Amino acid sequence: MNALAIESPLVVASNRGPVSFYPEADGQLRSERGSGGLVTALAGVLFEADATWIAAAMTVGDREVAASNRTVEVDPVGHMGFLEIPSDRYEGYYNGIANHILWFLHHHLWEVATDPVFDEGTQRAWEDYREVNRLFAHALDAEQGRNPVYLIQDYHLSLVPGFLRELQPRARIAHFSHTPFVGPTFIRLLPDEMRESLLRGMLGADVLGFQSEQWAENFLLCVRDLPGARVDLRRRRVSVDGRTVLVRSYPIALDPGPLRRTAASAEVKQLRKELEAWKGDAKLLLRVDRMELSKNVPRGFMAYERFLLDHPNWYGRVKFLALLPPSRTEIAEYAEYADRSFEEAERVNAKYGTDDWQPVEIRAKEDYVGAVAAYGLYDALLVNPVFDGMNLVAMEGPLVNKRNGVLVLSRNAGAFARLGRHAVPINPFDLNETADAIRFALEMPNDQRMRRARGLARAVLAHSPARWLTTQLRDVDAAQGLGSESAQQLEESGGAFHHDVGGFAQDRGGLVTEHGDLPHEH
Amino acid sequence: MNALAIESPLVVASNRGPVSFYPEADGQLRSERGSGGLVTALAGVLFEADATWIAAAMTVGDREVAASNRTVEVDPVGHMGFLEIPSDRYEGYYNGIANHILWFLHHHLWEVATDPVFDEGTQRAWEDYREVNRLFAHALDAEQGRNPVYLIQDYHLSLVPGFLRELQPRARIAHFSHTPFVGPTFIRLLPDEMRESLLRGMLGADVLGFQSEQWAENFLLCVRDLPGARVDLRRRRVSVDGRTVLVRSYPIALDPGPLRRTAASAEVKQLRKELEAWKGDAKLLLRVDRMELSKNVPRGFMAYERFLLDHPNWYGRVKFLALLPPSRTEIAEYAEYADRSFEEAERVNAKYGTDDWQPVEIRAKEDYVGAVAAYGLYDALLVNPVFDGMNLVAMEGPLVNKRNGVLVLSRNAGAFARLGRHAVPINPFDLNETADAIRFALEMPNDQRMRRARGLARAVLAHSPARWLTTQLRDVDAAQGLGSESAQQLEESGGAFHHDVGGFAQDRGGLVTEHGDLPHEH
Repeated sequence: MNALAIESPLVVASNRGPVSFYPEADGQLRSERGSGGLVTALAGVLFEADATWIAAAMTVGDREVAASNRTVEVDPVGHMGFLEIPSDRYEGYYNGIANHILWFLHHHLWEVATDPVFDEGTQRAWEDYREVNRLFAHALDAEQGRNPVYLIQDYHLSLVPGFLRELQPRARIAHFSHTPFVGPTFIRLLPDEMRESLLRGMLGADVLGFQSEQWAENFLLCVRDLPGARVDLRRRRVSVDGRTVLVRSYPIALDPGPLRRTAASAEVKQLRKELEAWKGDAKLLLRVDRMELSKNVPRGFMAYERFLLDHPNWYGRVKFLALLPPSRTEIAEYAEYADRSFEEAERVNAKYGTDDWQPVEIRAKEDYVGAVAAYGLYDALLVNPVFDGMNLVAMEGPLVNKRNGVLVLSRNAGAFARLGRHAVPINPFDLNETADAIRFALEMPNDQRMRRARGLARAVLAHSPARWLTTQLRDVDAAQGLGSESAQQLEESGGAFHHDVGGFAQDRGGLVTEHGDLPHEH
Repeated sequence: MNALAIESPLVVASNRGPVSFYPEADGQLRSERGSGGLVTALAGVLFEADATWIAAAMTVGDREVAASNRTVEVDPVGHMGFLEIPSDRYEGYYNGIANHILWFLHHHLWEVATDPVFDEGTQRAWEDYREVNRLFAHALDAEQGRNPVYLIQDYHLSLVPGFLRELQPRARIAHFSHTPFVGPTFIRLLPDEMRESLLRGMLGADVLGFQSEQWAENFLLCVRDLPGARVDLRRRRVSVDGRTVLVRSYPIALDPGPLRRTAASAEVKQLRKELEAWKGDAKLLLRVDRMELSKNVPRGFMAYERFLLDHPNWYGRVKFLALLPPSRTEIAEYAEYADRSFEEAERVNAKYGTDDWQPVEIRAKEDYVGAVAAYGLYDALLVNPVFDGMNLVAMEGPLVNKRNGVLVLSRNAGAFARLGRHAVPINPFDLNETADAIRFALEMPNDQRMRRARGLARAVLAHSPARWLTTQLRDVDAAQGLGSESAQQLEESGGAFHHDVGGFAQDRGGLVTEHGDLPHEH
């Protein structure tokens, strides 16, 4: 029984679950929703569809649930189950591979001349990653009695589709990447075995979902070098192991209800009042980002400095509020990046600040309601990631903002495909363009601001989480239908299948062979 | 009159010419061949084909030639002309854009979280780059009386084809990239105007040549986002402005004659003797590279350290000779990189060295004959660039080596397409794989060494500089033929042309439009 009228039971897997459990004094388990984040956003629609959700156990209560080998019911009609990750595996899996290699890879964050260096440590961490992914696959396989559709989330679990496919050849599997996906040249930084395993692992799914077309296409381009896989770039399909994998974009959607309820809460109203007092008559330029290497914090301050340098008429008339909750502070690069960001802001304040005016204010703590309060007030919202799978801030801000605030948006955010035409577009590496965009946003005439703000809100609301889910489910069935169809065609017509999957694959000649990495010469 | 029986006169353009001039005491100009480098390698075949070569004036003598507005005859039948670059333009053009932006871009050398930052300095340098490219185009246009084929070399002159096309709509133009070419995601680091100008500038040519299929394909993938251009990935063509541009790989070839003559010279024989004495009974692991960020020097030493750590039986029995002439020492990143490289080598020597054995020796000076002498003697040659357009060392070594030396070769070098199946392949970021490859190369049985060495030499010799040239010339004519044909088809059939250029372009829908950077959603 589920509210979305979805025919199949759903089993979701992600590293971090939307709910954690804590033991009470009486021995009962109390559940608590996680704060913020994509997974929480998905929890609404997925639990509404009566999903069973499997995540890594993070708390004592989670471990109790994991040990009991059962799932626990949570609102509205979902179930949470937990997987106990062996403690000696978690570090290698989570920090070693997922966050320190795959995250850096997909966001192009390495300084290639000297970084990355892959060594035994990488090898061991990769074994941990494989093992944790294998454990997830077994936990999912245990749910097979109900013949569910499996929905596997993100780069932590790239190998799960492949392992699960081995256990259940006919399983219905979708994998969704919340990050960008790296291009075909840059992915060759990975050790070859890791690159191949990663791509093959993901190809265990029937459907591979991405936040935007460009990430889906990058995946397809990467797979073209994979022996035995045939890519149809035009139809966004891969043919592998006699199956068809659909590679598509399903941009995530926001459920506006909870966000608007938060925005209307007394707490947010109070915070908004305080912010208004702090802001005074100045215009508010806002950014809301985790202190994350991909978020492009230092260049944001540098561009603001450039804007001030060129437009002294704005001195004292604008404040840049940067809400930057900390992130992965245990990784050296992140700590350095935070220092660097603070230094840039201090430099701007030292250069332009007066007794009456502090050009930049950073608030570096976890404060979701504070962010929602600030959403209401901005005149311009700066979202300038170097690369970003989607970017939720770019969607949340326009839903809550009350001042026809203008969105300055990086072309390299997945959200750009949806919101770009109503935003002021920037190349995030280009200080001049970013500085000009800030001025343009702050000085935009009211009618244009209103038109764009409406366009943004409309674009965000045009997509529903339910549709994000149902299109993936529809495509899982479509892929399974195609799989047998294609295999049959292949059998009937000899080479015809090869031809049928599009002109693209056949042209690669020597590339789609055993020597997949030896392009033939002219 | 030319020895290659090429019908059209050739006009070549490159930043640095193969010959420079120096005034003698009597006022006459003495010419001198440059040392090493790709351009010198091309000079043989191009001058043999009676080319006129235009380069930036570098010496007092070059400037005299430039001022005289004439070309000077050089051996065997070619002519050199020079372009005087305004002194206030050269720095921005050469260091600002070509070496500090385009080189870094095509080799993926940026630390994306904080580098690059594009600002006014970039903007000014870009104006310099445009202006120097424009000047080159005008210098080339002055040669139009003979109806030549223009052969424009490398990333310094990316905009020349476009400028020249404006001046001479029917000019026959080929552009060749000696570097890698960046992929479609990473190229979006460039400011948008720069990215578009660069791609459009190159598309002014009839033929765009690259060192390997993967770089040609990256170019095609980058162009897919360019408004008004239609890409046929399958046939390696772009349709733009009613013309057809062929995008192909023409891997550069070595003329073995001069190299073998150098190898047989008395000087090299003497140097080889000295090296043999230095080497003693040890096996020789060799690398020969400019001290260049793309060459992966530090990871080479780290992998060697890893090899020694795992194989104490090799202590005292191997010497790693690294010939590393300095490069671009005026750029801060290069100086730091050199320091870092020396430190790694010293660390290995401190860790494993004894009174009788120094595991690594670096020779950091310009010494071509010394390199040729070392080529003769290596047991294993390490060529591990992070990315490399082609890599000449990987081709030169096997032609001169006398010990059935084994080539350890990065999969990310353009040369891998040609030589990979006879080499020991490595991922240049993977220390374990590189360390294993070093051991595998040093311990390879003789029959296998011999077979591979023969294969390498055969693969190098299978391609001639003449063919490199004639295939490009043939394709220039082919492209011009297609251009009018396609235009006619388009006129006759309305939409048929669009269809004809392959399924790829039509599928991009919203991408090949005015809003080229707004992928449509699912």
